[in-house]
Amino acid sequence: MSVQVEPKKLKWVGQRVRRKDGPEKVTGSLKYMTDYQFENMVWGRVLRSRYPYARIKRIDTSKAKAYPGVICVLTHEDVPGFNGFGIVIPDQPVLCHDYVRCMGDAVALVAAETEEIAEEALQLIEVDYEVLEPVTDPEEAIKDSAPKLHPSGNIHSRVHVKNGDVKKAFAEADVIVENTYYSPRQMHAFIETEGGWGILEEDGSLTIRCPGQYAFRDRLQIARVLAWNPERIRVISNPIGGGFGGKDEITVQIYLALLALHTGGRPVKIHYKREESVIAGIKRHPFKVTMKTAAKKDGTLVANKVVAFGDTGAYASLGGAVISLAIEHSCGPYYIPNVDLEGYCVYTNNGIAGAFRGFGVNQVCLAIEQNIDMIAEKLGMDPIEIRKKNVYHQGGLSSMGHRVTTSVGTWKTLDAAENCELWKNREKYKANPSEPWKKRGIGVATSFHGIGMGFGLPDYGAATIELLPGGRFLVGVCSEDIGQGNGTVFAIVAAEALQCHIDDIDVIQGDTRRTIDSGTVSASRSTYVGGNSVLAAAPFMIKLLKSTAAEIFKIDVDLVELRDGKLWAKVPVEGKNVLTYADIYQYLYEHRRETKVEGHFMVPKAEKQIGNNVGMPHHVYGYQTHVVLVEVDTLTGETEVLRVVSIPDCGKVINLQGLEGQAEGGAVMGMGYTLYEDTIIERGIFKTTNFTNYILPTFKETPIIETIPIEEAEKTGPFGAKGIGEVVMIPIIAAIVQAIYDATGVRINHLPATPERVYKAMKEQGVIYRG
Amino acid sequence: MSVQVEPKKLKWVGQRVRRKDGPEKVTGSLKYMTDYQFENMVWGRVLRSRYPYARIKRIDTSKAKAYPGVICVLTHEDVPGFNGFGIVIPDQPVLCHDYVRCMGDAVALVAAETEEIAEEALQLIEVDYEVLEPVTDPEEAIKDSAPKLHPSGNIHSRVHVKNGDVKKAFAEADVIVENTYYSPRQMHAFIETEGGWGILEEDGSLTIRCPGQYAFRDRLQIARVLAWNPERIRVISNPIGGGFGGKDEITVQIYLALLALHTGGRPVKIHYKREESVIAGIKRHPFKVTMKTAAKKDGTLVANKVVAFGDTGAYASLGGAVISLAIEHSCGPYYIPNVDLEGYCVYTNNGIAGAFRGFGVNQVCLAIEQNIDMIAEKLGMDPIEIRKKNVYHQGGLSSMGHRVTTSVGTWKTLDAAENCELWKNREKYKANPSEPWKKRGIGVATSFHGIGMGFGLPDYGAATIELLPGGRFLVGVCSEDIGQGNGTVFAIVAAEALQCHIDDIDVIQGDTRRTIDSGTVSASRSTYVGGNSVLAAAPFMIKLLKSTAAEIFKIDVDLVELRDGKLWAKVPVEGKNVLTYADIYQYLYEHRRETKVEGHFMVPKAEKQIGNNVGMPHHVYGYQTHVVLVEVDTLTGETEVLRVVSIPDCGKVINLQGLEGQAEGGAVMGMGYTLYEDTIIERGIFKTTNFTNYILPTFKETPIIETIPIEEAEKTGPFGAKGIGEVVMIPIIAAIVQAIYDATGVRINHLPATPERVYKAMKEQGVIYRG
Repeated sequence: MSVQVEPKKLKWVGQRVRRKDGPEKVTGSLKYMTDYQFENMVWGRVLRSRYPYARIKRIDTSKAKAYPGVICVLTHEDVPGFNGFGIVIPDQPVLCHDYVRCMGDAVALVAAETEEIAEEALQLIEVDYEVLEPVTDPEEAIKDSAPKLHPSGNIHSRVHVKNGDVKKAFAEADVIVENTYYSPRQMHAFIETEGGWGILEEDGSLTIRCPGQYAFRDRLQIARVLAWNPERIRVISNPIGGGFGGKDEITVQIYLALLALHTGGRPVKIHYKREESVIAGIKRHPFKVTMKTAAKKDGTLVANKVVAFGDTGAYASLGGAVISLAIEHSCGPYYIPNVDLEGYCVYTNNGIAGAFRGFGVNQVCLAIEQNIDMIAEKLGMDPIEIRKKNVYHQGGLSSMGHRVTTSVGTWKTLDAAENCELWKNREKYKANPSEPWKKRGIGVATSFHGIGMGFGLPDYGAATIELLPGGRFLVGVCSEDIGQGNGTVFAIVAAEALQCHIDDIDVIQGDTRRTIDSGTVSASRSTYVGGNSVLAAAPFMIKLLKSTAAEIFKIDVDLVELRDGKLWAKVPVEGKNVLTYADIYQYLYEHRRETKVEGHFMVPKAEKQIGNNVGMPHHVYGYQTHVVLVEVDTLTGETEVLRVVSIPDCGKVINLQGLEGQAEGGAVMGMGYTLYEDTIIERGIFKTTNFTNYILPTFKETPIIETIPIEEAEKTGPFGAKGIGEVVMIPIIAAIVQAIYDATGVRINHLPATPERVYKAMKEQGVIYRG
Repeated sequence: MSVQVEPKKLKWVGQRVRRKDGPEKVTGSLKYMTDYQFENMVWGRVLRSRYPYARIKRIDTSKAKAYPGVICVLTHEDVPGFNGFGIVIPDQPVLCHDYVRCMGDAVALVAAETEEIAEEALQLIEVDYEVLEPVTDPEEAIKDSAPKLHPSGNIHSRVHVKNGDVKKAFAEADVIVENTYYSPRQMHAFIETEGGWGILEEDGSLTIRCPGQYAFRDRLQIARVLAWNPERIRVISNPIGGGFGGKDEITVQIYLALLALHTGGRPVKIHYKREESVIAGIKRHPFKVTMKTAAKKDGTLVANKVVAFGDTGAYASLGGAVISLAIEHSCGPYYIPNVDLEGYCVYTNNGIAGAFRGFGVNQVCLAIEQNIDMIAEKLGMDPIEIRKKNVYHQGGLSSMGHRVTTSVGTWKTLDAAENCELWKNREKYKANPSEPWKKRGIGVATSFHGIGMGFGLPDYGAATIELLPGGRFLVGVCSEDIGQGNGTVFAIVAAEALQCHIDDIDVIQGDTRRTIDSGTVSASRSTYVGGNSVLAAAPFMIKLLKSTAAEIFKIDVDLVELRDGKLWAKVPVEGKNVLTYADIYQYLYEHRRETKVEGHFMVPKAEKQIGNNVGMPHHVYGYQTHVVLVEVDTLTGETEVLRVVSIPDCGKVINLQGLEGQAEGGAVMGMGYTLYEDTIIERGIFKTTNFTNYILPTFKETPIIETIPIEEAEKTGPFGAKGIGEVVMIPIIAAIVQAIYDATGVRINHLPATPERVYKAMKEQGVIYRG
């Protein structure tokens, strides 16, 4: 069964649809975690490690336990099940027992009558440490001489892709560039830090409410630690506060669960202060990428050699997948026939890295785009021309050697860039800087991003549709809306498929009791997977509506037609020929029938895995080009982004307003990554601890952003849509760096391109304004 | 909430209750897997490895695919998700791609119109192997020079427990014995081999029907390989054919699922021939156990040192847990203050070993019991006396150093043994062998077995109770009844708790759609966990019954009493003061209310883990003593078991008939293990391939078995019950060996005690009959 809607008849898809969750968010009726207060609530706190790397010799909680107002103090001895968590491998202790491997490591938990008492109790827990020399450099960490942070050694994973004959290709190339690029440890900087509450219910079940990105997986991770039947745990993902990948891994859920078992049925709340969030939360993997790229005289790319090191810090989380995605995307959306691409994900004592919007692609995009720009410059080619020449097209081979059978919009996004007002008039835009000591430049870059989990990994979605009194529908998809607006997408898809008004669709998400498992909210997958899941459920609802109408009319189901949101008998029955959804509901209700259906979807897979590299390749990609105009202050090195043109290929646009939101948010996040943001850790110790010394772009820094969607419809997507959540922040990184070069003549290979770095580079090259 | 029933008022518990599933089994209305036939069914077959250890160079399925009547041929390339399975670590490939590590390894799957065509197609699959030298000896396998069968090396797991000062204790002991014991690779020999059917349903879900021991875990293992949402897979465990641990691991479920994806919606059936079952199925771990035991002059055991090697074959399955349980039980149910116990679970190319009734305890029981007998002999002590002297009691310490707070019946079982007719009249029984060249002997031994999964492992149960029309109840517990009779136990518990006739209870088990996860059917846990889960659900049903009655009577719920299976108003309402369960159902039905409740139970845990050894210790144990009379033919070495007294401490008996069934079946299985059974593998190649050269005890060899239950009520058990499924087969092993010694003066340390081994030993010691 499938739902067929002719494109011209689309009523909701592609419009600017107001977000379903807008009113409750702007009126404040939707609560932040920190706003939850209960009559008999207790406060939980986590004792963190004092050192980046140390052996625990002794933990004494007796003083803390005896402190008035303390309800419980828990250590590793109080973990009933497996003392570890982690999405791929559970290598992160819930509560450390032998070693601490980063400053964020949790050693003990406290629950107390007030937050203050909990804080005081933390101070009373005595932990004896044997301090060890931290491992801080990934390249040093993989040497045999380095202390092994985990039993399997410090290489968490290695990926390697080889195609063609790289040696020969380099030997025969006309131009070769080789550079090393460094990328920052970006912070997710969500508006609300990690927090939540948990309660042991009267029936013995456990409820955890906490923002997350995959409630069903969080439930499994909690169950593993508690040694509980997952069915007894209800996880509700709070849809506010932001995530960006930073709440994909377990944050406080397990701590809440453990404490809730010891508070006599009283709800327990944990809320990190920003400092704790900075130290204990995951970050983007900093990378060192060495890339050597070769081309022929005509600009044809012929070879690429990459060695990338990703620093996953103390624990794996999704580090293996991040390095895998980085390598898969390290040649950009181009066809390069000869490649040798190698990536290492390495354990160190530098905090913990994990999922973050872009997921490894950000880190390699600068390298390939910068190298291509340098080749173009050497060959005297236009940067868009060289890219257009090398992009792969639908049906063609990628640099991974696999055939891309799904839609590929890169060429069109580049063409749109070439024809956009900013690019066409670039000389005019550059001609008039705001001050004589400032210089302007324009840059363009393109990238892509896999949608879903890639080859060999589970990638399924599911949706329920329930007919409600009055003929309304409740659409359930577990995939959380933590700000992206996917709930509104699901409503649009359902309204379109069920021929009803969008106001007649309610959406429920992120609740393991009320929705069914639809996979993680990450990997740019929720529109694609959730939308397809709703479309998989809709035919079952239509079948229910029609067969019930047939039963009421007492006619054959083939004589019933669904049109304009009503059920029509082709021949009137007792003078009546139409029924509303409300009528159908009433009939089903009176006959005690089920009014709920479900639909399932699986992400199609590419034909073949690339070597033994799990997750490679993806079947569908989103594509994106950015054009940016910057102004660099030659006296200070400061870079200001003045204008951005964002050109996404997201397939068919489902909600234009949602797309623009993603494109604008992504551009600003990419700006922050490129120019400002880095979490500094020295010898394992966090030097950055709060926003006071972590610089984020604010509204003031936000430039004019124009979004020009390229609607290259993807036939496997819901109404032709693809995902876009990540790629919208990626090529802007390289575009800004290239614009800085265009303005100043200096290339910055070490991000962020802070005023210090830009100034230093300019000084070295004599670009300083001299009045 | 809890259900309180005074012991004297028990109506069903402790009686001889006819099995609920008796009629459908004896009339044949319950089908074996092999009896399932479908109109459009296709047959699946598995291509096995040709060698115990080899590298796969090439697999060519083209000829097989082209063969008329073949529907599909699948290899590792057709595995959509993770190509591996295994309860603890998924180290066993579903379909091998690089290496085969045992003769049972699967390389390809075929589905065809008939079984014959499938078989012919298997012959057409070309596999090129590079044959490698197999690793066959566990002690050789752990040396550095041995080829590594898995990336982590050949030691799958090592457990180590140390207490006290072994060195000092041995130095100060009065008597020391040290022996090395070998145990056989026993086969489960279930009546029906592994098989089942699978179908891709019209709604896109998958149904797999196949005997198994944990449908929910099987579902997860299938989902991991398919990369599917587990919710879309329905697993139904067929309750016939027998398991004994041999169907705890995945058997054909994943093959069925993979094939069902390629048969266009036609059901696919796989059924192993016995030869395939022997080669591909799991076996009991053969062990080599070296044990040194010391005592004081007065018989007090003071030290025990153990080194045990378990051969897990090519894959782990539950091997880690088996070696862990073996070490935990290696000192028997005694308190020995100084112990050094070390166990290795080692990979080789000898088939695959996994779960089997007794789970490692069988393998160590002979060692400790034989050593104690030898000590008793040296000290001139009675074998029961020395045991009684050393057993631990409730509240005392075990040899693991943990306090056993639950019921301990060992002393009472030994006391019952001492006072049983066979033991008291042993001289009389021994005096008159059936032939002059035969000799009789009597042996006694005792053992114990942990109930449930042990410390640090998830161990939960759940049950549903649904009120049905007519006031009947449907009790749902996923834990399968694969012959043990646990379904009847659940019915007894429910009937007792709900005050109704057992005929008014229906039980449903082993269906992931119709029941909720209640954990695995293994570890002697289903009576204890499932019974407690039913007892956890019952109060919710009673609350529903009472509150509904109060609503009907329009009185306060406190004025309603449940008595004799009816709801009584303490004060008559409009002349009426009683409602039946049928009345309650009718009212709830009319008011469209839910009539189903659920209850959950978690196995209580011991206070503290033993070292880092997962699963140690258990909180509750079952205990068992056996007394046996044997007759040994000195001309042939044949041993006949003439009488067995089985004395289990299973806590309160729930169903006396069920207990006797377990005790008798266990005794016969223990006899087979001791005297006949061994799966011979030489250089990785199975020499035993069918029952033609694998000798099982039959009805002819079954002796008179008397069961004397010791009802040491366990307060955490349902109505005081504990599990008994495994321990009933354990001490008989040592008791038979000791009876052989008693008869002949030869001690057999290498099982099975075949006629050849007994004869050889007698010959060496000059025991042969000389007319």
